[in-house]
Amino acid sequence: MVAELSVQYTDTANIPGIDGLRVRGDRLLQRLDELAQIGAIAGGGVCRLTLTDADKAGRDQVVQWMRDLGLSITIDGIGNIVGTWPGTEDLPPVMTGSHIDTVATGGRYDGNFGVLGGLEVIQTLQEAGIRPRHPLAVAVFTNEEGARFHPDMMGSMVYTGSLSLAEALATTTNVGTTVEEELRRIGYQGDAPCGNPSVHAFAELHIEQGPVMEQDSVTIGAVTGVQGMSWMEYTVKGVSNHAGTTPMRLRHDAGYAAMAIALAARELTKEMGGNQVATVGSIRLHPNLVNVIPNTAVFTLDLRNTDELRLQEAERRMAEKIGAIAQAEGVEITARPLVRLRPVDFDPAMIDLVETTAQTLGFSTKRLPSGAGHDAGLLAAVCPTAMIFVPSVHGISHNVKEYTAPEDLIAGANVLLHTLLQLAL
Amino acid sequence: MVAELSVQYTDTANIPGIDGLRVRGDRLLQRLDELAQIGAIAGGGVCRLTLTDADKAGRDQVVQWMRDLGLSITIDGIGNIVGTWPGTEDLPPVMTGSHIDTVATGGRYDGNFGVLGGLEVIQTLQEAGIRPRHPLAVAVFTNEEGARFHPDMMGSMVYTGSLSLAEALATTTNVGTTVEEELRRIGYQGDAPCGNPSVHAFAELHIEQGPVMEQDSVTIGAVTGVQGMSWMEYTVKGVSNHAGTTPMRLRHDAGYAAMAIALAARELTKEMGGNQVATVGSIRLHPNLVNVIPNTAVFTLDLRNTDELRLQEAERRMAEKIGAIAQAEGVEITARPLVRLRPVDFDPAMIDLVETTAQTLGFSTKRLPSGAGHDAGLLAAVCPTAMIFVPSVHGISHNVKEYTAPEDLIAGANVLLHTLLQLAL
Repeated sequence: MVAELSVQYTDTANIPGIDGLRVRGDRLLQRLDELAQIGAIAGGGVCRLTLTDADKAGRDQVVQWMRDLGLSITIDGIGNIVGTWPGTEDLPPVMTGSHIDTVATGGRYDGNFGVLGGLEVIQTLQEAGIRPRHPLAVAVFTNEEGARFHPDMMGSMVYTGSLSLAEALATTTNVGTTVEEELRRIGYQGDAPCGNPSVHAFAELHIEQGPVMEQDSVTIGAVTGVQGMSWMEYTVKGVSNHAGTTPMRLRHDAGYAAMAIALAARELTKEMGGNQVATVGSIRLHPNLVNVIPNTAVFTLDLRNTDELRLQEAERRMAEKIGAIAQAEGVEITARPLVRLRPVDFDPAMIDLVETTAQTLGFSTKRLPSGAGHDAGLLAAVCPTAMIFVPSVHGISHNVKEYTAPEDLIAGANVLLHTLLQLAL
Repeated sequence: MVAELSVQYTDTANIPGIDGLRVRGDRLLQRLDELAQIGAIAGGGVCRLTLTDADKAGRDQVVQWMRDLGLSITIDGIGNIVGTWPGTEDLPPVMTGSHIDTVATGGRYDGNFGVLGGLEVIQTLQEAGIRPRHPLAVAVFTNEEGARFHPDMMGSMVYTGSLSLAEALATTTNVGTTVEEELRRIGYQGDAPCGNPSVHAFAELHIEQGPVMEQDSVTIGAVTGVQGMSWMEYTVKGVSNHAGTTPMRLRHDAGYAAMAIALAARELTKEMGGNQVATVGSIRLHPNLVNVIPNTAVFTLDLRNTDELRLQEAERRMAEKIGAIAQAEGVEITARPLVRLRPVDFDPAMIDLVETTAQTLGFSTKRLPSGAGHDAGLLAAVCPTAMIFVPSVHGISHNVKEYTAPEDLIAGANVLLHTLLQLAL
């Protein structure tokens, strides 16, 4: 490997006894099944909202598996669980992991797959008698989904120091319960330090949660980064009037202006091309009646791009389009920023490593950005980081119908095995 | 007057003692104020929903005023009140009137103005000692608004035989109360016949409820007819997916398709021109979240035209546009008809009469269709019919802010006076 690499790793492709090493797929699937029973909901999905009793039960199960593997377990102030298998030398750990909390109508793979994939890798290595120089650590980050407490990815934010522990602990649900109260209630507020971790490298195994890999018939995604995200809420103020008696030329239709902006956003994606996406996912009209021109429309616009400058350009162009539409319809439009995240670029050497490892194992690969946020997006700020994607059938996620074929799950775990091994040996 | 006229009337322009006759504006405004106290709500509006206690109180007041004028009062099976001042000959009455029920947040002019304008005309003639050959009748039609019981214009429908009395009486609110129960409760189910009236001519005085006359600085509208109306509800079925991970080319966005149809409807009005209007007043998305592509959109489309063939063309063109949008986005769209009413053309001689009368009185005039439904639209099926509009400030109606300047109200009542007089003399 060349000298300017950001992370050191060992090429294992021709080491006897290592190149043929594979995870035990049946055991991985079995653990996925067992974890999916905790908080199971109709249709094969899971509701294991963060810091609920179901989350506690899921954590207890994962901790038990970690103990069974002889890992040393730490829990930090925000409830992140890290199970570590010591290496032969006193070095920073090579880390993997993800989260086990779900949205209210979640699937069984999102997050869980990354945690259990990590455990399977360690067990495989233990059974093969291969102990790397670096410790191997599996992290279970708290509240990745943000379904009860904002922001999402709270655990990895606190772990990497981009959100203070105190601020995170004070976060409340809409009924006033704090993160700290819930953490204590379920017994998962620990005293391990957080905010300044020492990690050699981080690789997260995850389902794609999108349709691109299935569409392209690819087994392994070498994730290049996480898209930046701009969420805005717009309020359009027009004039309510009778849908029959008001000529078109005298209308100031708040609903029409909002819908014209949604179409302009679609147009923007065509103009900009690349991976620019734009979504108007929510709208409310007032009075929302068949025969009344709406006086108010409130809608959201979700813009994403992997490139910060392109994302800024998208924001700028939309602002222009919105201004023009407001003027043409004679309505007033105000904007409220909801979320703004800069794109994350993963480490080029780590992306290469994932890609090469997958190809060496005989899998088809594709480089692609993640459209969704992940804990790896936070870890990227503190150590060389990458992600390994496996396909999501029909791109469905955050849904009980979330599904990835068993052979793809096992393929992903084998790529994780050999990626971690090269980093840790 | 020429022979083919559909209605006989006397030109009074140069009859001494008649051409200078005017209503007493102060008295008309005083009665409007008094009636507006019954069911008054904050902001100067009125809530006098049909067949409620407030409606009963309003009816009692109007009946009292009719008695004060010596009118003979009949009440029919659906509660329509008709106060008649006999003529010098046994002829069918010349009728005016409107309704006094309001929407939940109604104004004080809609309907009330037409009823009280009629009473003022009779009182003016009585005080001037002018008794026409034809009887003059003022009607108060039940449930014009349709705010508690569907359909709207129920009273005039039953009066003119386009809806059976039995069917109307059996209509229920959403809590199961019938029209008949409410009519009996407030003591306004009478035994006068309905369904086959003999009326010489009908003229209804009403506020425009739209912005056209104010925009054109016109005092009197000679209404040419009532627009036909086509209300459809569409359900768009697409595929929910992640707003970040789903490339634009793989989307089946139900919300986008619905909004594209709203824009196509606006485009339709530009293509068709004339008085074609189109409104998407209501929309609901599911799941209606910022970062999820909607899988379902339910929205309404309100199309109106004064010409039945043009309205059918609008429906046809929209069906084509909707089909094309569904195909392009890969979504399924189903349609549910909500309301379909054919346009009504008022009697040409009656429109001329209103226009000429207004001009003789020195008022600026404009011919325009009514975008809203009115009792006159039903009466048009049984006798020569016209409407007299006065301007609505900012076109606002069905709102506590509904307002028409006193001088315009008085102008309208004077046009009604001379229109009725020419028809009745």
